[in-house]
Amino acid sequence: MPVPEVETSLDPAIADRLKRTADGLVAAIVQEHGTGDVLMLAWMDDEALHRTLTTGRATYWSRSRGEYWVKGATSGHVQHVKKVSLDCDGDALLVTVEQIGAACHTGTHTCFTDDLEMR
Amino acid sequence: MPVPEVETSLDPAIADRLKRTADGLVAAIVQEHGTGDVLMLAWMDDEALHRTLTTGRATYWSRSRGEYWVKGATSGHVQHVKKVSLDCDGDALLVTVEQIGAACHTGTHTCFTDDLEMR
Repeated sequence: MPVPEVETSLDPAIADRLKRTADGLVAAIVQEHGTGDVLMLAWMDDEALHRTLTTGRATYWSRSRGEYWVKGATSGHVQHVKKVSLDCDGDALLVTVEQIGAACHTGTHTCFTDDLEMR
Repeated sequence: MPVPEVETSLDPAIADRLKRTADGLVAAIVQEHGTGDVLMLAWMDDEALHRTLTTGRATYWSRSRGEYWVKGATSGHVQHVKKVSLDCDGDALLVTVEQIGAACHTGTHTCFTDDLEMR
């Protein structure tokens, strides 16, 4: 589901550095401050990034629900954002957060619990 | 650039759990073993995942070049894979690696060097 055409106040100096998918999104890797655990992968459009940077609360674009999603708004498992870094080619963000409660909607600390067999 | 229709030997039990983009890809977050540093974000199709799991050398699909890419094949900055984990909804992988040299093609340790201002 493509993101809506919303007016955004994202700093143009940042917006110019983003390389978005055809749907207008940038991948957001979420890492826990302190432990370094990678908690989840989510997606942001310009407006979600603007809200994340200005409110300090991690805000994503939900591709399945087609809406903005303040992490923890219903579960209470909020993410207080300590830092947001952009990668070298502008298509991925690293969001460092203080995670309250479980990051995963399944109730686990991280979403990456399914280890694949190597051989 | 969509991935080619290649025969792949990826274990069907794994392939069944993947939720791919329209281009047939799954995001691969690369984290350094030991330090926990998030190094880069890359992409894998089924065959790249198969090669990664069976060779122990991180192998991606290059969207810009339209080809498989064994990380470090030309630079020497290879990634020895310690673990690959799939996330709860099957659209992201966490690849834990021993990184030789710089992970980023710019020569820096990680690709996430551009810290965005929060306010």
